[in-house]
Amino acid sequence: MKSTGIIVEYNPFHNGHLYHFTQSKETSNADIVIAVMSGNFLQRGEPAIVSKWARTKMALLSGIDLVVELPYKFAVQQAEIFALGSVYLLNALGCQSFCFGSESGEIDTFSRTIDILEINKKQYNDNIKKYMQAGNSYPSALSKSFQDLGLGAKYLDLSKPNNILGYQYVKARNNIHSKMEALTISRKNANYHDEEFSSSTIASATAIRKAIFDDNDTTKIQQYIPTATYNEISHYQETFGILHQWELYWPYLQFKLLTLTHEEIAEFYEVEEGIEYRLLKAAEKSVSFYDFMNNVKTKRYTWTRIQRMCVHILTNTKKTDMKNECKYPEYIRLLGMTENGRIYLNENKKNISLPIISKLSSFQNEALQLDIKASKVYALALKEPARQHLLKMEFSQPPIQV
Amino acid sequence: MKSTGIIVEYNPFHNGHLYHFTQSKETSNADIVIAVMSGNFLQRGEPAIVSKWARTKMALLSGIDLVVELPYKFAVQQAEIFALGSVYLLNALGCQSFCFGSESGEIDTFSRTIDILEINKKQYNDNIKKYMQAGNSYPSALSKSFQDLGLGAKYLDLSKPNNILGYQYVKARNNIHSKMEALTISRKNANYHDEEFSSSTIASATAIRKAIFDDNDTTKIQQYIPTATYNEISHYQETFGILHQWELYWPYLQFKLLTLTHEEIAEFYEVEEGIEYRLLKAAEKSVSFYDFMNNVKTKRYTWTRIQRMCVHILTNTKKTDMKNECKYPEYIRLLGMTENGRIYLNENKKNISLPIISKLSSFQNEALQLDIKASKVYALALKEPARQHLLKMEFSQPPIQV
Repeated sequence: MKSTGIIVEYNPFHNGHLYHFTQSKETSNADIVIAVMSGNFLQRGEPAIVSKWARTKMALLSGIDLVVELPYKFAVQQAEIFALGSVYLLNALGCQSFCFGSESGEIDTFSRTIDILEINKKQYNDNIKKYMQAGNSYPSALSKSFQDLGLGAKYLDLSKPNNILGYQYVKARNNIHSKMEALTISRKNANYHDEEFSSSTIASATAIRKAIFDDNDTTKIQQYIPTATYNEISHYQETFGILHQWELYWPYLQFKLLTLTHEEIAEFYEVEEGIEYRLLKAAEKSVSFYDFMNNVKTKRYTWTRIQRMCVHILTNTKKTDMKNECKYPEYIRLLGMTENGRIYLNENKKNISLPIISKLSSFQNEALQLDIKASKVYALALKEPARQHLLKMEFSQPPIQV
Repeated sequence: MKSTGIIVEYNPFHNGHLYHFTQSKETSNADIVIAVMSGNFLQRGEPAIVSKWARTKMALLSGIDLVVELPYKFAVQQAEIFALGSVYLLNALGCQSFCFGSESGEIDTFSRTIDILEINKKQYNDNIKKYMQAGNSYPSALSKSFQDLGLGAKYLDLSKPNNILGYQYVKARNNIHSKMEALTISRKNANYHDEEFSSSTIASATAIRKAIFDDNDTTKIQQYIPTATYNEISHYQETFGILHQWELYWPYLQFKLLTLTHEEIAEFYEVEEGIEYRLLKAAEKSVSFYDFMNNVKTKRYTWTRIQRMCVHILTNTKKTDMKNECKYPEYIRLLGMTENGRIYLNENKKNISLPIISKLSSFQNEALQLDIKASKVYALALKEPARQHLLKMEFSQPPIQV
């Protein structure tokens, strides 16, 4: 069986994701599609609106064959580490290829850009440093430095978020010397962060979440998501009473910040350069998470970078927790599979280079403890007994099967 | 002006406290009465039902002339340290005497008991060790060891909570070589921890709080408290939307415990002998603070000892925070005064041996930081904008004057 890998968050699974999945399967000519998916907290530093289990079910019902969890240690991270963890897992699972959506849509552009940046490394890095010192955020410094090289249209537009991710995927593939073929497809219609609906069937996950939370009306999103997603979201809301969003964790974040010293806050991962003073000051005067974010925000830090810091503070993840020696994932946490996915795993047992965890009690690992802690915190948005119900799933839920 | 001191928590101020106050003034023949009062968290390891400012107002309106705050470092503590901090402050304020309620009611009994225990020190301490090793709580070991000395009726009954406190007050007075005269009056009717109403006008604070929270009916308590107290409680509830109780802090405590390791929990003050494992396990499975307490409780730990641990965990107070070199209070935080109180302070300026803080910004001190942090946490039970309103008082409220 030939497999291709995709890297996803599915927050929630929508028609754009369905398009990416079907195109990936077609382009790669694969029999099965394997998704590496972020767990309960996402790359943007946000809680997923529904748990990883519910998002796994959405994926399986829409045709994905295997869903594995990208560990917290790699998921709540800047693009480079997120990409490294994801690509490493797909490689470990024996994928012949992986396929990502990008604004560019041409795979050669990615390799070409990696090569030219290698050649211009010194100038590029000097420029990045210069722009950072001038107060730019890291992604903005990257994009400006790249533009300064004046390379023209044969190369990637690295101001586009999915080009950046794709660039990191291909680079990660090269770095781990994987034989996986890199494939890309053009993203259709919606831009990554679009907040408005711009097509009749495809909208960004951001626009969909906005419609859910701001308008408090899930029917409005029906045309942009598969029925399976719609049903899962409704079911989740009925079962657990809420959909997850940052505001529900705000009291915990505020409490935590208010009881710590500057020095203690500086111990958390990604808290750098004195931003602990801003965090603490904002925690005292802010009345909501949104208010807090606006009080902390500066030109130097992207919104998502600050959100990621906040997730690490919530989960008590310190620099020392992230700086241990394992640079790559050490386990494959299986969240769900179709019958085909099950057969694939059986057939490829010997080739899969990492232990597969389908039950939590069977495996001890430092990074896995971070995943578990993240799930404990994630469940705190729920009222009892829903909290205990969701938390119990972390320990006893077998891989979802459809 | 002659002054006497009393040591109080006023949670809330009731007719029994009024009796204690008037008797203290009469017995001591003092012109003014000075109260050292716990701040927002109390000796039993509980949040006060209303803030220290509201409780100060109750006290002043009932005739107390000066209210000063017992710092967190001495307030949320076992009897010995609580007593030491309180008596030290009263001495620093120039009181000629201090007066406490006790089951015994005879001051000579206290000195006599201190003397006899000094003589029998070795046997007494050996007994305490023996009872602790057998799994008794510290207060229970004290009481049993004392009984074993078989000293008879001339000595204190150290199984009574107010006798224990009084014993510690007198001992603290001796230890700091204070010239204050110790006075005691018999407590009237209600026992300290009585949960039922046993008289028509006097009830324990415990019974009063129980009526407020369990029956959700403040009118029921009117006969047991001065009108000033009743009005203050009603006013507080209107202004801030709640009365404080542990259950409102439970989500924060649970969150904190769930994100820490055993080793980190063991760093908190009073967390000893492996109880961190019980705390963590109970945090996962409990659905309320009451449920949690019942899951943690063992014979070895009193309910209040566990509650104090929990307050320290909430306020992030570690063993290292409590083990600094200052054994005694280093400042007098003035919460409120009557006109007489103001005159007293003016007249005695030169004799008062500690700096008086009437505005927070004017003084820097490590123990004071604990008080401020406790107030930040205390305010987290309130919804915005009430939280900010209460928190602002910590920094800008001048001493209450009536």
